[in-house]
Amino acid sequence: MHIDHIGIPSDHPRAKSLYIREMLVNGFRRGLVVPEGLIAHGRGEAYDYLIGERTTKTAQRAIEAAAATMLLSSRAVISVNGNTAALCSNTVVELAEVAGANIEVNIFYRTEEREKAIKAELEKHGAKKILGVGLKASARIPELQSERRRVDPNGIYAADTVLVPLEDGDRTEALIRMNKTVITIDLNPLSRTSKVADITIVDNIVRAMPALVYAARKLRRTTTAMSLKRITDNFDNSKNLQESLEIIKKSEVQ
Amino acid sequence: MHIDHIGIPSDHPRAKSLYIREMLVNGFRRGLVVPEGLIAHGRGEAYDYLIGERTTKTAQRAIEAAAATMLLSSRAVISVNGNTAALCSNTVVELAEVAGANIEVNIFYRTEEREKAIKAELEKHGAKKILGVGLKASARIPELQSERRRVDPNGIYAADTVLVPLEDGDRTEALIRMNKTVITIDLNPLSRTSKVADITIVDNIVRAMPALVYAARKLRRTTTAMSLKRITDNFDNSKNLQESLEIIKKSEVQ
Repeated sequence: MHIDHIGIPSDHPRAKSLYIREMLVNGFRRGLVVPEGLIAHGRGEAYDYLIGERTTKTAQRAIEAAAATMLLSSRAVISVNGNTAALCSNTVVELAEVAGANIEVNIFYRTEEREKAIKAELEKHGAKKILGVGLKASARIPELQSERRRVDPNGIYAADTVLVPLEDGDRTEALIRMNKTVITIDLNPLSRTSKVADITIVDNIVRAMPALVYAARKLRRTTTAMSLKRITDNFDNSKNLQESLEIIKKSEVQ
Repeated sequence: MHIDHIGIPSDHPRAKSLYIREMLVNGFRRGLVVPEGLIAHGRGEAYDYLIGERTTKTAQRAIEAAAATMLLSSRAVISVNGNTAALCSNTVVELAEVAGANIEVNIFYRTEEREKAIKAELEKHGAKKILGVGLKASARIPELQSERRRVDPNGIYAADTVLVPLEDGDRTEALIRMNKTVITIDLNPLSRTSKVADITIVDNIVRAMPALVYAARKLRRTTTAMSLKRITDNFDNSKNLQESLEIIKKSEVQ
């Protein structure tokens, strides 16, 4: 039996899931992730288990619609919270480059220390420009209380499309009311965020982000604007969510 | 809109769940709970949501079988980890009294500091005798690696019945191999623990523990040993788990 450097036996039935969990706990120890982020991750683990811990064809359709939407946007922004930074800083940076999007740090429990830790993590993975940190986050999302509503006037506030992976319902609803096109990555097809977003990718962010980079790279090279438009027009989020829910309901006792 | 002392609006769609979550985060800040415990709680939240955040009739049957089993046992032990201590110290102490069981601190990530914090929390709620702390945990569960296998020779090691709420699969399997009767509380009917335990209560520990105290108190007063035996004999854990799974599968988009 092989035991990796964090002590997870490779033949453990939940090895991959445990590995992702350790990445997150590690992000927590480095000040990127808050306790509530760990709990949220656990919820995701449960849904991921029920969906079979794979990118379903249904999710893949949402990924392609998301990639097309980002490529068609003129001011797309990727919103990064602690969990996203801990798990996907590398692919966030790649996606921003491929899709011509900005990166904005946007956290529910805002402290300057944590903003800076997330910024540093993204920079470590090659990010050049990061919005939303410190005094830059000077604009306000209407109707949201407290620190959650602070956004960058050059980022989310002015964006046409916002990718908000792992977002909470209140914030997503506020973005929708601001007429943003909202793309989310959320393993719970029943969450408020999943239901109000324009495009919901029901998949683990660790699988969805590289798939999104791949789709954006491929579509950018091979597809006309008109065809991209067709992909987005043909996407029906309610129908897609319903399909994901059916997959969860059919999950078998193992 | 009423906002309670931890800042959760009472009309928030997830108020109760958020309140429990805050209890756990609070337990984390006080050194009872580890980061991995927060993630595990999140998994539970997801399953609780799918099961409708209520004690189902199916769970109630498991609760009654569990109460009967504990009353019939001569050396029942309640195993307490960080999450259980943070959420249910009061009902653990009550159940121990009503069912004549011992309480043992039993944690996956064992440090003396955390053992003592859990012990103190239980004592704050009136526990008189607590096993498994420090040098008392000198016996070993065979086949388990590391600190996880340490148990009290006067507690779990010698027990006939062990209540292990929120337990991991490896440990539960080891207890079964030691011929203990294992009762668990686990919101995931598909988990290894759920499947190998003798009695699995698929319910939130915050609801299940008071219900277990109530059932034990009622059965103790009103039911003969022969009738208790009939309750345990009639309980079929696989069938019960299958019913819980069906409830999850029928959960509706809200």
